[in-house]
Amino acid sequence: MSAAGPDLAEAPEERRFLSIAEAAALERELLEDYRFGRQQLAELCDHASAVAVTKVFPLAALSRKQRTVLVVCGPEQNGAVGLVCARHLQVFEYEPTIFYPMRSLDTALHRDLTTQCEKMDIPFLSYLPMEVQLINDVYGLAVDAVLGPGTELGEVGGPCTRVLATLKLLSIPLVSLDIPSGWDAETGSDAEDEDGLRPDVLVSVAASKRCAGRFSGRHHFVAGRFVPDDVRRKLALRLPGYTRTDCVVAL
Amino acid sequence: MSAAGPDLAEAPEERRFLSIAEAAALERELLEDYRFGRQQLAELCDHASAVAVTKVFPLAALSRKQRTVLVVCGPEQNGAVGLVCARHLQVFEYEPTIFYPMRSLDTALHRDLTTQCEKMDIPFLSYLPMEVQLINDVYGLAVDAVLGPGTELGEVGGPCTRVLATLKLLSIPLVSLDIPSGWDAETGSDAEDEDGLRPDVLVSVAASKRCAGRFSGRHHFVAGRFVPDDVRRKLALRLPGYTRTDCVVAL
Repeated sequence: MSAAGPDLAEAPEERRFLSIAEAAALERELLEDYRFGRQQLAELCDHASAVAVTKVFPLAALSRKQRTVLVVCGPEQNGAVGLVCARHLQVFEYEPTIFYPMRSLDTALHRDLTTQCEKMDIPFLSYLPMEVQLINDVYGLAVDAVLGPGTELGEVGGPCTRVLATLKLLSIPLVSLDIPSGWDAETGSDAEDEDGLRPDVLVSVAASKRCAGRFSGRHHFVAGRFVPDDVRRKLALRLPGYTRTDCVVAL
Repeated sequence: MSAAGPDLAEAPEERRFLSIAEAAALERELLEDYRFGRQQLAELCDHASAVAVTKVFPLAALSRKQRTVLVVCGPEQNGAVGLVCARHLQVFEYEPTIFYPMRSLDTALHRDLTTQCEKMDIPFLSYLPMEVQLINDVYGLAVDAVLGPGTELGEVGGPCTRVLATLKLLSIPLVSLDIPSGWDAETGSDAEDEDGLRPDVLVSVAASKRCAGRFSGRHHFVAGRFVPDDVRRKLALRLPGYTRTDCVVAL
């Protein structure tokens, strides 16, 4: 991909939000030009996402029960996001449990990330209780890694629709990774919809997607400090300033 | 590999140091049983190594010149260690320069990690000045990622011997990653040798290797918080306690 590609044309003003096409161009540039691997990017993004969770819910302030985290993983790339985040939360001494109803075990990446979690004794739920109160009683918070900017609910349907219906009803805090699942990444249109998810925390990965402008929850982070300066300039992207060795910024 | 393997037999007391065989068994277990990828492990270890560097030499306390870091990469796995550490140092706003005389471009891992550094405008030196004072004048510190626990100087020879001869003579601070290059990982025997490297900082990756017991420099860190509890127990390994989301512990 060249710098002259339509998605990476120079823009006169710096922007805070990425469109779906720009987010895809950013990913392509990292994978194809910079030769980052998907393993590497998952590790960088989701370590940072787990750190963001700890900023809002620091371990020392939590009871034993509050340390239990239900991580809900969607299909494809979103599964990877959730699996790696769960592993880092376990390393940070939280107690994650994973629900991963649409496993993408056809790729080595997903198979390996799943094995890592299983071998580290992170429990996988075989089904999500229909009774929302059971989830509220058992878990301190929930992490939504169901759908990302490139995936529409209509495409995946079935299990994801049921999962989102359950997540909407939870009274425990909800953290969405990258975008709130089910939201239109451009317009955030589900944000207006009574039925949309309303996460308390949004962790934008690498850079905020446009829909983040309509996020009205308590905490918004950008996580994943690895966008090369050259790519940031091509996208005319304004990133928040990270301090010291932090991989996360609160907006 | 099974838990009954000779290297992972239960030991009555917990140990702080790993032998070469135990370090190799740890790596094998992570790669084969846990299905970690080399990309992932490099990212986890060397992000942590770069963070350790920033603990001793915090950016805010450094002059512009002191922020320049010469990262010397050896062959094979050690090259990966240095390349990823250099990239993270650049992200943390240091100014790394890489010397990588024995490039392992036959593997996708090394090729990709090299591309990432090149595309991020990290300079690569085509030769190391013979005149040590030139290096002392230009760089604030040097990072030694030349030889790891499994590699003997005799096997690689040539460029590495010359590089180590130069590193020994530097007056700027020297940080060794995993073990001081040229030391016997078991006995640290070069530590007794007048000719051995004497780093100011040692960053043990994942766990200290035996030779670290003879390290007498100012700062010793363990970096890379990812050894699963199950593996730690099998190796009867006592790891230092990490706090919050830290990936590095000062000993």
